[in-house]
Amino acid sequence: MQGPVRSPSVIKSSLIEPDGGVVVDLVVPESERGAKTVEAESMPKVRLTKIDVEWVHVICEGWASPLKGFMREEEYLQSLHFSSLRTKDGSFVNMSLPIVLAIDDATKESIGSSSNVGLVGPDGDLIAILRSIEIYKHNKEERIARTWGTTAPGLPYVEEVIASAGNWLIGGDLEVLKPIKYNDGLDHYRLSPKQLRKEFDKRKADAVFAFQLRNPVHNGHALLMNDTRRRLLEMGFKNPILLLHPLGGFTKADDVPLDVRMEQHSKVLEDGVLDPETTIVSIFPSPMHYAGPTEVQWHAKARINAGANFYIVGRDPAGMGHPTEKRDLYDPDHGKKVLSMAPGLEKLNILPFRVAAYDTVAKKMAFFDPSRAKDFLFISGTKMRTYARTGENPPDGFMCPGGWKVLVKYYESLQAEDATKQAAAVSS
Amino acid sequence: MQGPVRSPSVIKSSLIEPDGGVVVDLVVPESERGAKTVEAESMPKVRLTKIDVEWVHVICEGWASPLKGFMREEEYLQSLHFSSLRTKDGSFVNMSLPIVLAIDDATKESIGSSSNVGLVGPDGDLIAILRSIEIYKHNKEERIARTWGTTAPGLPYVEEVIASAGNWLIGGDLEVLKPIKYNDGLDHYRLSPKQLRKEFDKRKADAVFAFQLRNPVHNGHALLMNDTRRRLLEMGFKNPILLLHPLGGFTKADDVPLDVRMEQHSKVLEDGVLDPETTIVSIFPSPMHYAGPTEVQWHAKARINAGANFYIVGRDPAGMGHPTEKRDLYDPDHGKKVLSMAPGLEKLNILPFRVAAYDTVAKKMAFFDPSRAKDFLFISGTKMRTYARTGENPPDGFMCPGGWKVLVKYYESLQAEDATKQAAAVSS
Repeated sequence: MQGPVRSPSVIKSSLIEPDGGVVVDLVVPESERGAKTVEAESMPKVRLTKIDVEWVHVICEGWASPLKGFMREEEYLQSLHFSSLRTKDGSFVNMSLPIVLAIDDATKESIGSSSNVGLVGPDGDLIAILRSIEIYKHNKEERIARTWGTTAPGLPYVEEVIASAGNWLIGGDLEVLKPIKYNDGLDHYRLSPKQLRKEFDKRKADAVFAFQLRNPVHNGHALLMNDTRRRLLEMGFKNPILLLHPLGGFTKADDVPLDVRMEQHSKVLEDGVLDPETTIVSIFPSPMHYAGPTEVQWHAKARINAGANFYIVGRDPAGMGHPTEKRDLYDPDHGKKVLSMAPGLEKLNILPFRVAAYDTVAKKMAFFDPSRAKDFLFISGTKMRTYARTGENPPDGFMCPGGWKVLVKYYESLQAEDATKQAAAVSS
Repeated sequence: MQGPVRSPSVIKSSLIEPDGGVVVDLVVPESERGAKTVEAESMPKVRLTKIDVEWVHVICEGWASPLKGFMREEEYLQSLHFSSLRTKDGSFVNMSLPIVLAIDDATKESIGSSSNVGLVGPDGDLIAILRSIEIYKHNKEERIARTWGTTAPGLPYVEEVIASAGNWLIGGDLEVLKPIKYNDGLDHYRLSPKQLRKEFDKRKADAVFAFQLRNPVHNGHALLMNDTRRRLLEMGFKNPILLLHPLGGFTKADDVPLDVRMEQHSKVLEDGVLDPETTIVSIFPSPMHYAGPTEVQWHAKARINAGANFYIVGRDPAGMGHPTEKRDLYDPDHGKKVLSMAPGLEKLNILPFRVAAYDTVAKKMAFFDPSRAKDFLFISGTKMRTYARTGENPPDGFMCPGGWKVLVKYYESLQAEDATKQAAAVSS
C-alpha cells in the first residue's frame, strides 16, 4: 500500500536538538550579565524555592543536556510516558524525571501574556531568565503516579515539593545570570560536567566509573569501587578513574546531611580506603526523588553527561521503604533491569554488583556468599545509625575509623540538640 | 576517551525480534492440533478468566505483534516504563499496555518447576500452551499507577480484572490450539489482522484509515469519518478505505453492549450514513482499559498491525471521568499529543479532529465553530442515554433513525429488566 506523502495536517511534535555529546552551558557570559539583569528586572517574576534553585543549577550546567530549561508540556509528557525525549535526528535521549517548575494561580495571573519571566531566588535575588515560556496544567496526581508508581502518602519529594506546589507548570529556555553558589564551604566540590570532563582529561582517564551515593561510605561501598577498578584494569583499561559522586540536593530528613557526608568521604580518602590518585570526589547538585527504577536512569544519564562511561548499580538504587506498607517500595532488582533497558542509555556500561555484607569470619566487608549465609551480617542504614547514636562501635572493618568518628560526632550533636529541645519543652 | 570493548559482565537485556511488518499467527496448524492437545493435557494448568481469553485472542492473531505470548518480566518492565519494547535491531515497537497473565499462589505452587503450562478456558476446555514460562511478582499498585496515572478506586479494568487477580504474573510463548470463537453470532465480524490485510488488498485500498470506537455511531462520528475520506482523496489517494473498528472485549457496565452496538452500526451502513463500498466493519477483540493517553497508543498500534496507516483521534481518546473527582481523568488533549510522540508509532499518520457537535441552526452534526458557540449543543453519552431511556427523541440529524431505534429498544429492555428486578425485590 503506497500513497502520496504525509499531509501537512498530520501532527508530529516539534523536536529538540540531539545531544551530540556537547554539554549545554546556560550561564550567560560575564560581559552580558549587566544588560541581561536589567532586562530581567522588567519582566514578571517567578519566586523559586531552594529546591527549584537546585534544578536551575542542574539544568544550567548541562547535567540534563540536551534539555535547555524547565520542561514545556511536550517534554514533560515524553518524560512521564516514555522516560526519554525524541531528538530531531530520531534518536532518543534518556529523561526519566520531569524537570519542571510549578507556579500558583496568582503567579500565572501576574505573568499574563508575557513570553519571558525573571526567576528570583528564595532571598529575592534575580537568578535567571526563562524565555519563550509555556504554561500548562500541573496534574499532581498523574505526575506522582507515573513517576513513583504509587500515590501513597509519605513520599519525601512529594511532601516537600509537590504537595504545596502550584497547579501550573511553566517551561521555557533558561539563561542563568551567574553561576549558582551555595557559600556553604563546599562549593569547591561542585564541579560542573564541563569541569569534570576537563579533570578526567587532565588525569588521562581511559575509563570513568561513577558511583552515586547519598550515604556515608562504608567498606562495602569501598569494596565495590575498588573491585570495579580491578575489573576495568583486567578488561584492559590503563587508567580507570572513579567519580565518587555524592548527591548534594534535597534529601529526606533522616539521611545524613551533605556537610557531614563530605567530611566522612574526606576521611575515607585520608585513611587510604580509596586511592586519592584515581578518585575524584565531587558533588552532584540534583535533588533526590527516591523514585527507584525511574530515578536511577536520571542518576546514570547525568553522569554520562559529565563524561562517565561505566556506572555501578547495586541493590534497590534510589529506593526506599514503602511509605505505608512493610516492604520495599520497589523490587530491589528492578533498578538495574530498567537501567539496562532504558532508551538513550545504550552507550552506558552498567556494572551490576553482588551484595556486600560484613563477613564475621574474615572480619571485613566482603561479597555475600550464599553458601555460608550465616557468617554474614547485613548492616542496614538504620542499624548503622543505631550504632552511632548509642556510641557502640560497629564490627571491626565495617568503616574506616576516621570516617566512623565523623558519624559518631554528628549523631552526638543530634542527641544534644534533642536533649535541649526536650528540656525546653519541659520547662515551658 | 576510548577503551576496550564492552565486558561480558555488562548487562544488556535479551531482545525480541523486530516486527518487520510480519504479523505473528500463534494458532497451531490443524494437523498438529491433536498432538499438541495431548501434550498440553500432561502439563500443569492455569485457569483463564473471560478477559484472559480475550488477551489470548489478541496475542495469537498478532494485534500485539511482535509479542509472541504473555509478557515476561523484561517486556512488562519496558511496557510499564517506556510504553515500548526494544527489538534486536535497536528499533522500538510501541507496547503501551502490559499484556500479562496473573496467577495466584496456589497455581504458582502447582506449576512448580515446569517450563510449560496448559491454559484452560472458563468452561474447562484446553485453549493454549504457554511455553518457556517465567513467573514474577505482580506489584498491582505499581502496575496501576504507571498504567493509569492514578490509583483512585473505581477504575473499571482494575476493579474487574486486577483487584481480584493473583500476586504473580506468568509470561511465556503462546501456542493456541484452535482459533478463539465466541459463538455469539458475531464471530464473522472478528477478522484477524491477516484477514483484514487481505480484505484491504482485495478492495485495492491505497490508504486505510481506522476509527476506534466503543459507543454507538452518531452523525458526528460519521462526519469525522466522511470528512477524513474527503481529505485523503484531496491528498491524492484514489481509494481510501475506512476500517470501522468497534472494540469487542471487556467494557464497563454502563457502556452499550457489543451486540447492540453491532446492530446499530449495521443500521448506520444500511441508512447510507457511511458508504458500505468503502467501509469495512470488523470487531477489535481487545478488552478496554480506559487508560487514556497510555491506551490510545495500544489502539493505534494494533490497527497498524492490521494494515491501517491513518488513525483518527479525537478529544480524550480512551478517557473517562475521574472515578472520585469531578473532572476528566485525563487532559482531553493529552491523548493526541502523546500519540504523536510515542516511540514505535513513527509510521502512523495521525489525523486529529475538531470537535463535532449538534448545530441547532443547520439542524445537523457539524464541526464546532467557536465564533457561534451558542448555536451548538454537546450531546454527551450520558445525555444520549437519557434521551433513549426516557423515550425522548434526540434533535433531528443527531443519529440516523434506524440506528436510534436500536438504542431505544435496548434501553427499553434494560428498563423492563429493572422493573422486573424491583418487583421481585418488593415481593420477596
